[in-house]
Amino acid sequence: MRKITVSGKDEYEILIKSGILGSCGEHIRKVTSASRALIISDTNVFPIYGQTVVASLEQNGFKVASHIFPAGEASKNLATVEGMIKALCENELSRNDIVVALGGGVTGDMAGFASAIYLRGINFVGIPTTLLSQVDSSVGGKTGCDLTFGKNLIGAFHNPKLVLIDPETIKTLPTRYKNDGMGEIVKYALIKSEELYNTLLNCKNIDDILTDVIYTCVDIKRQVVENDFTEKGERMLLNFGHTLAHAIEKYENFCGLAHGEAVGVGMLCITKTSEKCGETEVGTAEKIEKLLNKFSLPTTFSGKTEELVNIMLYDKKRRGDSINLVLCEKVGKSYVKPFPISKLGSFFVEGK
Amino acid sequence: MRKITVSGKDEYEILIKSGILGSCGEHIRKVTSASRALIISDTNVFPIYGQTVVASLEQNGFKVASHIFPAGEASKNLATVEGMIKALCENELSRNDIVVALGGGVTGDMAGFASAIYLRGINFVGIPTTLLSQVDSSVGGKTGCDLTFGKNLIGAFHNPKLVLIDPETIKTLPTRYKNDGMGEIVKYALIKSEELYNTLLNCKNIDDILTDVIYTCVDIKRQVVENDFTEKGERMLLNFGHTLAHAIEKYENFCGLAHGEAVGVGMLCITKTSEKCGETEVGTAEKIEKLLNKFSLPTTFSGKTEELVNIMLYDKKRRGDSINLVLCEKVGKSYVKPFPISKLGSFFVEGK
Repeated sequence: MRKITVSGKDEYEILIKSGILGSCGEHIRKVTSASRALIISDTNVFPIYGQTVVASLEQNGFKVASHIFPAGEASKNLATVEGMIKALCENELSRNDIVVALGGGVTGDMAGFASAIYLRGINFVGIPTTLLSQVDSSVGGKTGCDLTFGKNLIGAFHNPKLVLIDPETIKTLPTRYKNDGMGEIVKYALIKSEELYNTLLNCKNIDDILTDVIYTCVDIKRQVVENDFTEKGERMLLNFGHTLAHAIEKYENFCGLAHGEAVGVGMLCITKTSEKCGETEVGTAEKIEKLLNKFSLPTTFSGKTEELVNIMLYDKKRRGDSINLVLCEKVGKSYVKPFPISKLGSFFVEGK
Repeated sequence: MRKITVSGKDEYEILIKSGILGSCGEHIRKVTSASRALIISDTNVFPIYGQTVVASLEQNGFKVASHIFPAGEASKNLATVEGMIKALCENELSRNDIVVALGGGVTGDMAGFASAIYLRGINFVGIPTTLLSQVDSSVGGKTGCDLTFGKNLIGAFHNPKLVLIDPETIKTLPTRYKNDGMGEIVKYALIKSEELYNTLLNCKNIDDILTDVIYTCVDIKRQVVENDFTEKGERMLLNFGHTLAHAIEKYENFCGLAHGEAVGVGMLCITKTSEKCGETEVGTAEKIEKLLNKFSLPTTFSGKTEELVNIMLYDKKRRGDSINLVLCEKVGKSYVKPFPISKLGSFFVEGK
């Protein structure tokens, strides 16, 4: 078993182990004296792992209830959160009880948010079951949900009491969801770890080294977040490729590339540009493309760069005159470069 | 001007002064570099004070917008909070901007909650305009809203950046709303300050000493909350009379006595009982009744004690076997007494 301790006011542990789902109740019992547990999960995940989690919780003395909501991004709204709160209320969870968020990023974000606001905050345990949520949402304390008129507008910082990651759950993931995580894993390598880049490039089968790879990514995120909790400096590195990725997702109305796939394209696109401008070691874009190809991740986007730039400009307009771009100096090393918004268009279009 | 500093992680000041509304922008400017301010208020309060606040904010360099929702308890729901978030979004408030909550408890609770969750938290300033919200909600950091299936189920701890109290606003309050505050003011005297009790009993016209009375009450609450932020000990004293008051309000389906009026009846009822049981100095109930009468606050309730006890039992069932009752030892002194729920009925019914 690999273990990461996330320090701070609400210190907690992240445990990574194949098959840990079967003993989740035992680990959760160590961090809480709760008598009741409410599992929050969706219609994709609960049928696969629900009974394992219920059984282990019951074996460890929890009175268990579950609340299942329809899987998918369309559920990421306040009505779904309200449904979770209603379930918490109907199952009579008190301030000492615990929520178990079993599922991907949408489940974790919303169940975490429901836990943050129910009775002004109760504990929750995260059991992320997608590769993306395992490497991305276990650290940082961000919870929230979308509104009909915008994404990620509401939320709260609320750390879990414990995170359990079972790499076995990746085996049941559709390819698209696995790619979603792989894009972010490649990102961690590019911004912080040449060693991880080489490991990924040279491995025969990623499934064989998944526990170690997840551990490395989560630990990179832990270090970055701990160094910069206020999100003003190093933490921005985690957004490498994301400015373009968000524009791609928006352009495709969130029906095209998966988030992690878009991040892959975004990282490659900005690095091609920054390489031409002399900001990046020559050959880096090629190395990125090689790794994306290895994991069958897309390297191109159907739209035009001009269209992406327009979307980026619209998104960023309200935030002032400059934008912080994350650039890759070379594989394993990245930095933040403040960039005048007025020059963003020519940077991307001419750079490309 | 009277000033109270509430210390802690997010230290802030409460300023109390007649007419402070007219210079609110100046005071708010001292605590923020925000460029935009969104005033959140209701259809009762904004027509009276809105323009004064808008003008003062604009004079101090804020770009001002306002969001007005229908006055009344019926608005205390998640849809109203969502409307506030939408207004924050449409008016392009960023993390550095500020919300100004102008109104009574419902406005403060919900605007504070919207501020707590919008972009995971932005600053807000409280301008409470009812006597109850001035003495009750300025300290403690509690924000939240009701759901269709229960009151006060969701919320967050989120301190204001500043609180401005203008006792002049009490002059426009209907009697019922003034009584609402007077009930809580009497409570502060009974639990903590014989001096306040005597001041209230001997004053000719409460309006003449309102600034000092508000100051005294807010300062008592500040001390109590600072001594017990985790709400496990002294802070429970603030609930004196409230267990019965909640039952009365529920019995009357929240259409009968105002909250503060119900608190008055609750304090008198429990003290009559505790006096008979030898827990309270003889004559205390009479002293409470005298003060309630002076401010024309009700001293009796139309229902039967048995019915109240049943409601209390139902409410508290889920929280374990005992309940913490707040009892008044004598005027100005109170304490918490853990009480077995099984004996609650006989305590009240026989005691009465």
